[in-house]
Amino acid sequence: MAASAVGRATTAGRMLDLLRTRGTLSRVELAERTGLTPATITNTMRRLIDAGLVHEIGRGHQRGRGQPRRLLELDPTAWYAVGVQIDRTTTTIVVLDFAGVRVADASLRGSGGQSPDATIASLGEHVADLLRCNDIAHERVLGAGLVTHGPQDRDRGVLLTVQPDPAWLEFPLTATLERRLGIPVLLENDATAAAFGEQWAGAVPTDTFGLVYMGSGIGGGVIVDGESYRGRASNAVEIGHIALGQAPCFCGNSGCAQAEAGPRAVVEQALADPDLAARLGIRGDPDETLADFERLARAWRTGDRDAAALLERSARWIGRAAVTLVNLFDLDTVVLAGPAFATAGPLYRLHVESELRRRALTRALSSPDVRLAANVETAAAIGGALHVLRTMPVDVRREPQRIESA
Amino acid sequence: MAASAVGRATTAGRMLDLLRTRGTLSRVELAERTGLTPATITNTMRRLIDAGLVHEIGRGHQRGRGQPRRLLELDPTAWYAVGVQIDRTTTTIVVLDFAGVRVADASLRGSGGQSPDATIASLGEHVADLLRCNDIAHERVLGAGLVTHGPQDRDRGVLLTVQPDPAWLEFPLTATLERRLGIPVLLENDATAAAFGEQWAGAVPTDTFGLVYMGSGIGGGVIVDGESYRGRASNAVEIGHIALGQAPCFCGNSGCAQAEAGPRAVVEQALADPDLAARLGIRGDPDETLADFERLARAWRTGDRDAAALLERSARWIGRAAVTLVNLFDLDTVVLAGPAFATAGPLYRLHVESELRRRALTRALSSPDVRLAANVETAAAIGGALHVLRTMPVDVRREPQRIESA
Repeated sequence: MAASAVGRATTAGRMLDLLRTRGTLSRVELAERTGLTPATITNTMRRLIDAGLVHEIGRGHQRGRGQPRRLLELDPTAWYAVGVQIDRTTTTIVVLDFAGVRVADASLRGSGGQSPDATIASLGEHVADLLRCNDIAHERVLGAGLVTHGPQDRDRGVLLTVQPDPAWLEFPLTATLERRLGIPVLLENDATAAAFGEQWAGAVPTDTFGLVYMGSGIGGGVIVDGESYRGRASNAVEIGHIALGQAPCFCGNSGCAQAEAGPRAVVEQALADPDLAARLGIRGDPDETLADFERLARAWRTGDRDAAALLERSARWIGRAAVTLVNLFDLDTVVLAGPAFATAGPLYRLHVESELRRRALTRALSSPDVRLAANVETAAAIGGALHVLRTMPVDVRREPQRIESA
Repeated sequence: MAASAVGRATTAGRMLDLLRTRGTLSRVELAERTGLTPATITNTMRRLIDAGLVHEIGRGHQRGRGQPRRLLELDPTAWYAVGVQIDRTTTTIVVLDFAGVRVADASLRGSGGQSPDATIASLGEHVADLLRCNDIAHERVLGAGLVTHGPQDRDRGVLLTVQPDPAWLEFPLTATLERRLGIPVLLENDATAAAFGEQWAGAVPTDTFGLVYMGSGIGGGVIVDGESYRGRASNAVEIGHIALGQAPCFCGNSGCAQAEAGPRAVVEQALADPDLAARLGIRGDPDETLADFERLARAWRTGDRDAAALLERSARWIGRAAVTLVNLFDLDTVVLAGPAFATAGPLYRLHVESELRRRALTRALSSPDVRLAANVETAAAIGGALHVLRTMPVDVRREPQRIESA
């Protein structure tokens, strides 16, 4: 990496991250929060201002008899980042500006039934369209975060699973998307990205928490002291495969939370009652699991008892998986995120909290708190884009120039 | 802390830790491994040598045409640390010298049936006796690591559980032992301490691994990149409370690994067969669970089929708990430690490895490896003493003096 490139761990990267989180800060506040010397702050800030990444926006309150402090703020238009979350039923795209604010989003058909090559091709077109329609120049896009279920090899940008089908195993996802988009692409786990996204959204009152992610499958993420738990090779917190019952799971284990209580399992339980399935229009197409699950959730919300019984059973199982998550990672806060919680979220929140309050080992020491994500459907895509903003180096030599697209 | 006191995070602390791990190193090697300048190494090393903590032991191989390098080594007699592991059935005491080598140990009756006050009083006497019999001056003992099951409040030095009985909840364990022994005492979790102990013993070929600890109960520890996973308040990896079945557990949950397959559960299953219990001399006293469990393990080793059936059932359950441990923390290496594995260890190793190879989510990416601890019964006490050596500050101003005890 060139000496002038700044990533998160560098002085400039830390200053950018603080400004992104806090909005505006003075040089004095930056020095206090980083522990860096005023001289270092001044010099680094001069480079960031010259590069157009930061600008001054007038003056803050006067303190004592000193000079009024000039406040600094990121230039939101300096760079943009894309976040793309692929699921079998739905794909979500978001664009964040340099300050981390969402400036565009789109939701489209999932990868179901398509080859990875066709999925990436279509994704590339949609991202290009979204940028063009929002007047965001391709040259101003720092990169894209591609967010999927695990297990992944993040360094090589490939999935290490035959889910959703064998063509996806080891397919060069990030390399193909990089070629299509002409920008760097980072691979990230959906649940971990959602945890980053919710932390950023200010929706979690602690910097140590767990997250249950439910799309077509179930995943988990853990943030400890503001950093994600990665384990050996970033394939951690696979709470969809906590064994709870007897149902066989594709993974080779039995009784996995996903096989007992995931959206696919709930839809199959609904199909076992032909009257219910017909009444709610449940079709059972594996590529439309989330759409069928949403039909059940809407039926529950309008008072359908059969739908409620199926969802409540699932929610109690997820609650028991959350007990193991909390007992193993020593947590008291759990966030629920992902498209499966779009409508059914409140029901799941209630049951997961109830199970934790009955069963978590340290429940008497710190009362378990379960929250529905602020961005329940888009947290993972937002987290993917944030990951780009926070970790990809910005070349501060380069003069920022807003090149308008055609 | 005085400016001349050195802990792990200081320059001197890092150098001491490297010498403790590597045995002997030259100043050049210390500079290479720490990234510190030769001047810093030379100055710090002068203080450590003057204080009697390190000494030179002749010369290493000549490299090129330069001066032969003088090798440095810790003075093993400069300081000592005590590790004490309390369990209901057995208590283990070890004394390590400043180089981390075990110089004394003792095994005594556990805490079962005694009040915490009486337990600590008796423990204090045994530690004092052990030091006296081994000619270790009280003034040369840096501190003691007290190792127990969780949940704990490590800062306050108390247990946050009514196990083994309500008198232990919030009893000032470390403060009482400090008063008895006249040395500082640190509280540590048994499974985490055992993981430190095994890492130090060089028994684990990776710096990211999980540990299943089985004493009277079941605990877990995780080391990632050489550091223990602590979570919110150091009460993590409670794998004894992974829900697997239906049996009610004292914790309020049901089906916990400990309630289904822990030593107490196995002993109770044996008691349900009066012929077996009589044949093996199983008594069922809750304070003697590990002794009864050991009777079963010895019977298995000599070919008793009924004992084998009970232990194999338990080992498969522990294997399923290990699958969840591995799936959540993304591990491929699991170590089994604790007195319950003293005799039955090989049987458990086999079944836990077999379950992981059948069921762990990333088993195809990295073949699971299960090892029996090198110090199966004493790893936790060793880890407690190591924790003292690695984290307690040493006053380098003080001239070391070996004061012989009476």
